[in-house]
Amino acid sequence: MDTHDLVAVSDRRQQQVDRVLKAFFSDSRYRAEKLGAPYSALWQTLERNTSGGKRFRPRMVMAAYESLGGTDVDAAAHVGAAFELLHTALIVHDDVIDRDFVRRGGPNVSGSYRDIATTAGIPLPIAEHRGMSVAIIAGDLALFNAYRLIDRSGADGILRTRLHDILDEAMFVSAAGELYDVDFSIRAEPPTVDEIVEMERLKTAGYSFEGPLQAGAVLAGAAGEAVDALGAFGRNIGIAYQIVDDLLGVFGDENDTGKTTVGDLREGKRTVLLAHAVTHPEWAAVEGLFGSPDLTAADARRIREVLESTGSRRFAEALARDFANRAWEALVNPALPDAARAEFQPVVASVLGRVR
Amino acid sequence: MDTHDLVAVSDRRQQQVDRVLKAFFSDSRYRAEKLGAPYSALWQTLERNTSGGKRFRPRMVMAAYESLGGTDVDAAAHVGAAFELLHTALIVHDDVIDRDFVRRGGPNVSGSYRDIATTAGIPLPIAEHRGMSVAIIAGDLALFNAYRLIDRSGADGILRTRLHDILDEAMFVSAAGELYDVDFSIRAEPPTVDEIVEMERLKTAGYSFEGPLQAGAVLAGAAGEAVDALGAFGRNIGIAYQIVDDLLGVFGDENDTGKTTVGDLREGKRTVLLAHAVTHPEWAAVEGLFGSPDLTAADARRIREVLESTGSRRFAEALARDFANRAWEALVNPALPDAARAEFQPVVASVLGRVR
Repeated sequence: MDTHDLVAVSDRRQQQVDRVLKAFFSDSRYRAEKLGAPYSALWQTLERNTSGGKRFRPRMVMAAYESLGGTDVDAAAHVGAAFELLHTALIVHDDVIDRDFVRRGGPNVSGSYRDIATTAGIPLPIAEHRGMSVAIIAGDLALFNAYRLIDRSGADGILRTRLHDILDEAMFVSAAGELYDVDFSIRAEPPTVDEIVEMERLKTAGYSFEGPLQAGAVLAGAAGEAVDALGAFGRNIGIAYQIVDDLLGVFGDENDTGKTTVGDLREGKRTVLLAHAVTHPEWAAVEGLFGSPDLTAADARRIREVLESTGSRRFAEALARDFANRAWEALVNPALPDAARAEFQPVVASVLGRVR
Repeated sequence: MDTHDLVAVSDRRQQQVDRVLKAFFSDSRYRAEKLGAPYSALWQTLERNTSGGKRFRPRMVMAAYESLGGTDVDAAAHVGAAFELLHTALIVHDDVIDRDFVRRGGPNVSGSYRDIATTAGIPLPIAEHRGMSVAIIAGDLALFNAYRLIDRSGADGILRTRLHDILDEAMFVSAAGELYDVDFSIRAEPPTVDEIVEMERLKTAGYSFEGPLQAGAVLAGAAGEAVDALGAFGRNIGIAYQIVDDLLGVFGDENDTGKTTVGDLREGKRTVLLAHAVTHPEWAAVEGLFGSPDLTAADARRIREVLESTGSRRFAEALARDFANRAWEALVNPALPDAARAEFQPVVASVLGRVR
């Protein structure tokens, strides 16, 4: 396939998932209206918070499904939408835990409801608490409905149970990752590189890559070995992706990523970069700046210089490449058809292409 | 049946549900251990937070099921356990929203994790936030697993879908009630009696009475009319129960209820009593005391006197009786067998017996 075809396939998949989610939210809003306009408005806010994303997880489900010979793309879109809803639930609650009120440049659920309250003259601390309270409710609704989208896929019997098991495992593992992330934030000693990798694997890679790929493969009726191989690919590429994401959050080109390279440093995000740097004496010079809410662009430059001189940037890049290579090795498993390699090779390339 | 038999039936049902939940938590802890001891400890805390309750919702499921002729009590216990897990999830998150760290006299999930942090020397605001963060994760785990307990009941096909629909509706409606409760707390004008009744119906009565009773009836294979009649019974007795609960929270005998009669007044809980009282000029005299964290026993007495003189106590008692009577009317529906009336008549009597 040439690039034009790849984009066309990707667009088609996104549209199919969008259609499933649109029907789900339309149905939910209709039900909610009977319980009052404010409840319907909450569902609208939740729907807005699932829009605008890249539908990354659903596209993983569908890519696995189609490359392994599946043809009922509507069923795959439903399973994909289940993972998208799980993703929404997890980020809405993650934002509550991180006390974030903004996502992708706009207000998230907490932010929307905080802003309504402040506009009505409610003092900020109460308005923030109200925003976070509503976000807990909204996340619960997204979470509770993820299973139901799998039910609506038409998968039945053992197949449905296996898909539920995979979704269950994805959520189970992500909760563990979130717990460890919370624990790192209050612990005296900084996390090690291994701890960060494990946390990122659990918190994000599992439900973003491994789970969706396994679900797509299972839905396609793939053999156990193929499901396992795609799962292993997902686990490793997911970790690589997270490390690259952390690298771009500090060293990226804002024009490329659309993301400031000061934010992660300002919030003191715990990444492989940090875990590596803190073991070097040079880090002491910038330790006080890291995580400072008043961090300036000049401060960020100083921290970046230290991350270079300690070799932390190089280390993280090598680690990302290492995991991407392991992902590729999983992909060359003969249990997988060439179509799967053709489908996912660009994913490996894009991760590798984003590190120097 | 005499009282002794009733207690024996109730104990048997509770044990059956306890067994299902024990197996579920044992399984989850085993899975969690592989992801690290702190995650396993979180599951233990969650299990502890589901223990010690009256298994009220499961017992409703089983009472409906057995009185309508169902004989697979293990299946009913699984469906009941699903509602218990939903209940756990909702109260764990409700406590986060209310910033409560205690339940039934002991630390809840937030409280347990706050206390671990303060013991480790973490400052209180950070420790509290950590407690609440972990409670969000714990509630998510309970919520996400409720469906799965229905799956494990052995119910399949359309039956399973109908049970999922009922559980779904219970959660859907409770989220609306929680939203309105949050909205009342920041709104300038106090809620009306009708708004309070509607909020309590949505937030608690639906998933505590109506849903469990419908689920038990559906699992027993009851006809639509019987399911609807039990649902109507549940809706009305659930509202009556909530109003009585609110009455006992202010006027109850602490030796009987095991609950302080100052707590609700101190936290300014929005109840039918309050909604009625605020429409009377006498309320102005105690308005400043209501909801004060420093409320004394003498202040509470003054508020109680006003609630008597405004007729608010009498009004709430009459309203509770009215809903209990409506519940009884639903129960005399000929679509229901005598066994159902025998089963639930004591529930009506116990609600009526708790008001003067």
